[in-house]
Amino acid sequence: MKKLDRPVVKKLEAIVGPDQVTTSVEDCLCYSYDGSGGSFLPAAVVFPDSAHQISAIMELAGSASFPVVPRGAGSGMTGGALPVQGGVVVALSRLNRIVEIDPVNQVAVVEPGVITGDLRDALKEFGLFYPPDPASLKFCTMGGNIAECAGGPSAVKYGVTRDYVRELEVVLADGRIMKTGVPTAKGVAGYDLTRLFIGSEGTLGIITRITVKVIAAPSAIRTFLVACSSMTGAVSLVADLLTRLTPCTLEYLDRTAISIVREKLDLDLSPQVEGLLLIEVDGDEGAVAEQAEILSDFMVSRSDQLVLSFQAAANDEEREKLWTARRAVSPSAFDLRPDKISEDVVVPRSRIAELVAEVEGIAADKNLVVFTFGHAGDGNIHVNIMVDRNDQEEVSRAEMAKDALFTKVLALGGTISGEHGIGITKAPFLRKELGQVEYAVMRQVKDLFDPCGILNPGKIFLGEVR
Amino acid sequence: MKKLDRPVVKKLEAIVGPDQVTTSVEDCLCYSYDGSGGSFLPAAVVFPDSAHQISAIMELAGSASFPVVPRGAGSGMTGGALPVQGGVVVALSRLNRIVEIDPVNQVAVVEPGVITGDLRDALKEFGLFYPPDPASLKFCTMGGNIAECAGGPSAVKYGVTRDYVRELEVVLADGRIMKTGVPTAKGVAGYDLTRLFIGSEGTLGIITRITVKVIAAPSAIRTFLVACSSMTGAVSLVADLLTRLTPCTLEYLDRTAISIVREKLDLDLSPQVEGLLLIEVDGDEGAVAEQAEILSDFMVSRSDQLVLSFQAAANDEEREKLWTARRAVSPSAFDLRPDKISEDVVVPRSRIAELVAEVEGIAADKNLVVFTFGHAGDGNIHVNIMVDRNDQEEVSRAEMAKDALFTKVLALGGTISGEHGIGITKAPFLRKELGQVEYAVMRQVKDLFDPCGILNPGKIFLGEVR
Repeated sequence: MKKLDRPVVKKLEAIVGPDQVTTSVEDCLCYSYDGSGGSFLPAAVVFPDSAHQISAIMELAGSASFPVVPRGAGSGMTGGALPVQGGVVVALSRLNRIVEIDPVNQVAVVEPGVITGDLRDALKEFGLFYPPDPASLKFCTMGGNIAECAGGPSAVKYGVTRDYVRELEVVLADGRIMKTGVPTAKGVAGYDLTRLFIGSEGTLGIITRITVKVIAAPSAIRTFLVACSSMTGAVSLVADLLTRLTPCTLEYLDRTAISIVREKLDLDLSPQVEGLLLIEVDGDEGAVAEQAEILSDFMVSRSDQLVLSFQAAANDEEREKLWTARRAVSPSAFDLRPDKISEDVVVPRSRIAELVAEVEGIAADKNLVVFTFGHAGDGNIHVNIMVDRNDQEEVSRAEMAKDALFTKVLALGGTISGEHGIGITKAPFLRKELGQVEYAVMRQVKDLFDPCGILNPGKIFLGEVR
Repeated sequence: MKKLDRPVVKKLEAIVGPDQVTTSVEDCLCYSYDGSGGSFLPAAVVFPDSAHQISAIMELAGSASFPVVPRGAGSGMTGGALPVQGGVVVALSRLNRIVEIDPVNQVAVVEPGVITGDLRDALKEFGLFYPPDPASLKFCTMGGNIAECAGGPSAVKYGVTRDYVRELEVVLADGRIMKTGVPTAKGVAGYDLTRLFIGSEGTLGIITRITVKVIAAPSAIRTFLVACSSMTGAVSLVADLLTRLTPCTLEYLDRTAISIVREKLDLDLSPQVEGLLLIEVDGDEGAVAEQAEILSDFMVSRSDQLVLSFQAAANDEEREKLWTARRAVSPSAFDLRPDKISEDVVVPRSRIAELVAEVEGIAADKNLVVFTFGHAGDGNIHVNIMVDRNDQEEVSRAEMAKDALFTKVLALGGTISGEHGIGITKAPFLRKELGQVEYAVMRQVKDLFDPCGILNPGKIFLGEVR
C-alpha cells in the first residue's frame, strides 16, 4: 500500500484540521475492514465535517492522484467500504446530523453518517416512520444504505431505499457539489440522477446530504409463525397469501436453517417441518385486526397436510420469541463451522422452492453446510455457506458452490444481488448477470463521472475501469 | 424541414417494409403535433414492429444523420413527441403486445405501444392492478408513460410510473439493444439504468419492452366530496388527514375552478365554498369501511367554519356525479377563452394555499383567467391559464404569468414539472430549477448516450446539446 507524501497529508490537515486526519497504522487498521470480512490498509483516514471539505479532498485527490473511499459504518457485506487500492478513507461519521424532520410534508433531511436506527427513533415522536430495515439498522448509516440501496424484511410491503430518497447532495469526483432531485413526491425535471447514485456504491460521488420520504407510523403490528410440511408448499402459500393481503414481513427458514436452531428454540415444532414462515401485518388497530383475521382464516383453510401449525404472538414477549427463531439462525450456524459466506440472491418468488432444492443439491454435491433464509415475499434469499477459512480446500469447494448458485439464480431469472451490492465479492460475477451492452454502458457511466478512477476504485467492475 | 434523400427512404423501407414508411405530407401531418399544441412536420414516419428494426433505423440515422423522434400516442403536454428538427418519427403503435401477465410474481411485460388503460383492463381478469393513472390513460401508451414518468391522482397512495418499472429493453442511439434491471422487487447489480431512462423523454434511447410490477386489485372504493370555506383551511385539512390515512385520491379545485363548473353541477354547493376536495379510499371491503369511518369522524370534528359540507357517494352513480365536478373543469374552461396553457407544477403540500393565492395575484395582475386544480396529497398542481392564441398581447401576458408562476414555485421549494416532463415547453425554464452542476451533468449524460444528437433532439436542453 502506497503511503501518502507528507505534503499531501499536510494539505489534508489544512482541509479538515490536523485532528481529523490520521495516518497511524493502528488507526488505519480500524478502517481497513468491513462486513465482508476483507481487509485492506488505507494510507490515511480523514473525518470531514462538510461537503465543502469533501470537495476540497476530491480536488486534492485529483491533483495528487490518490484513491478516495467513502465509508459509513462499514457494515456492508460485499466490500464496498474497503480501500482495496489504499488511498484515503473518507469517514463520514462526523456528518451525522438529522438536519430536519418535516411532519407536514413527511420528509426528513439527514447527513450520510446518521445511523438508520437513530433516524427511526427520532421520527417516533412525530408519529413518523422510515421503513427500510436492513438487519444492520442499529449501526449502519443512511449514506451506506443509499450507496448500496439497502433493503430488508419490510420491503415486501414498503419497498427498498430507492423508494424513499427524494433529494441528494453529492460531491463529484472533480470536487463539484451537486444537488439532485426534488423534495416532493412528484418531479420530472430532467434525468433521474438521484437514483443513478442510489446503489452506486460510492463509485460515482460521495453523498453528503439526503432527503427521504417518511410515512405515518403504523400503530400496531401482529406476528405469526407458520410451520409447513414442504418448502414448495410454503412458497405457493406465500404467493397465494399475497393476493389477499400485504404483510410487512414474510420471512422463511429452510429445513437446514430450522435444524440449526431447533434445539435452541422453545417453539414446539413438529419434526415434519420443512419450511417455517414468519409473517407480520401492521397498520392501525382496525387494519391489523382485519388482516389477522384474513390470515388466520387462510391458514385454517390450508391446515391439511401443508400447514402443520399456525401460532400468533399474543403479546410483545411472544413476538420476541418468534423473532428469536429468525435471529438465532446466523449466530447458531457458527457452532457448525467458524466462517460464513453470506450470499444475497433474488429469484422470482415462484421459484424460491426450486432454488432452495438446488442449494440443497449443491451442498450435498460439494459436501458443505449451506442453509437459506430470507424474504419470501420478494424472492430475496440469503444463502449461507459455512466454512473454515483456514481450510483452503473447503473454501475452494465453497467458491464452486457460490458459482453454481449464481448460475442457477440467473437461469431462474433472478439477480446475484438483492440488497448487498456488488462491491468486490460479487464483482467477478457481474458480467454473468448483465448483458454485454448494459455492462459496457455502466462502465461508460463510471468513466463519465470519475474519469481519473479515484472514487472507490476496484469496485463493481474489478480492475477493468481506470 | 429537410427532406430525406430517396436512398435513405429506400433503406427505411428495406428495414420495416415498404408499407410501414410514409413520407406523404398528409400522413406526416398526423404525426406532426401532440398534446402540447405544437406542430412540426417530420420528413417521414415509420412503423417498426421490433427492437431489431428500431436498431437498424438508429444505425441508419447515425450514418445518414437524421433525427429520430419516438412517439407513443402523442398525448404528452410538453412537446416530447414533436419532431422539432424534422427527421423520422418512429411510431410505436405496432409494438402494442401485452407479452405476459404473471399473477404469481405480480409482473406484466408489455411493449411500449400498449395503451395504459388496455393493460389495466387485461389485468382485471387476474385480479391485478397497475396503479399509475394519468388523465390520458384511456389513450396514452406505456412507452410514453415511462418516457415522461407519468403520474396521476392515485400517486398520493400508489406512487408514479418510476415506482412500477422493473426492467426495460432499450435501443440506444447507436443501435445497440440493451436490457436494464431485473424482474424482481429487489436488485442492485450495478447502476440503476432503468430509472435513468424513466422520464428521459426519448432523448437517451427508445424503449421497446417494459416489465412492470402490478399489485392485487383493491376490491372496493369509496368517494367523498368535501367543501371548505378556505383554501388555506383545505390544505391544512389535507396535511392533517394524511397523518390518519392514505386516500388513493386527494384532489382539489380552487375557487376559480369551482366557479367555472358551479352552474353546470348538481352538487348543492354553498356560495362560501373556496376549496373543494375530492377524496377516495380503496382496499378490500373491510379496509374501505374502516377508512370511511375515520374520514367521516375526522370531517365531523372539523365541521365548524372550515368544512361546509361532506358528501359520500352512496353508489357508482353518485360517485360518477362527484367525479363530474373534477372532470367538468377543463372542458368548461373553454367557455371563457378558446385556448388553455396547462402547467404542471409541484410544491411541498404545506405550501399549496400559498401558491394558489399567488396564482390569484398573478391572474389579477396580468388580467387573465387562471384556475388551479390538482393533487393536493402530493402538492402537484395543474395551473391553467386561459387565453386566445390569436391574441398575441394576451399570449404574451400569459407567458409572463407562467414565468412568475415558475419563479414562485421554485421559491417555495417545488419543481416546474410534476408529471408532464420538460419537452420543449418547459425547456427554457429548466436552468431556473436545476443547479449549474446538475444541469451540466445531465447534458454530459445526454452526450454520453447520444453523441451525435440524433435522438429526439431539441428536447429538455433546448438547442444547447449537439
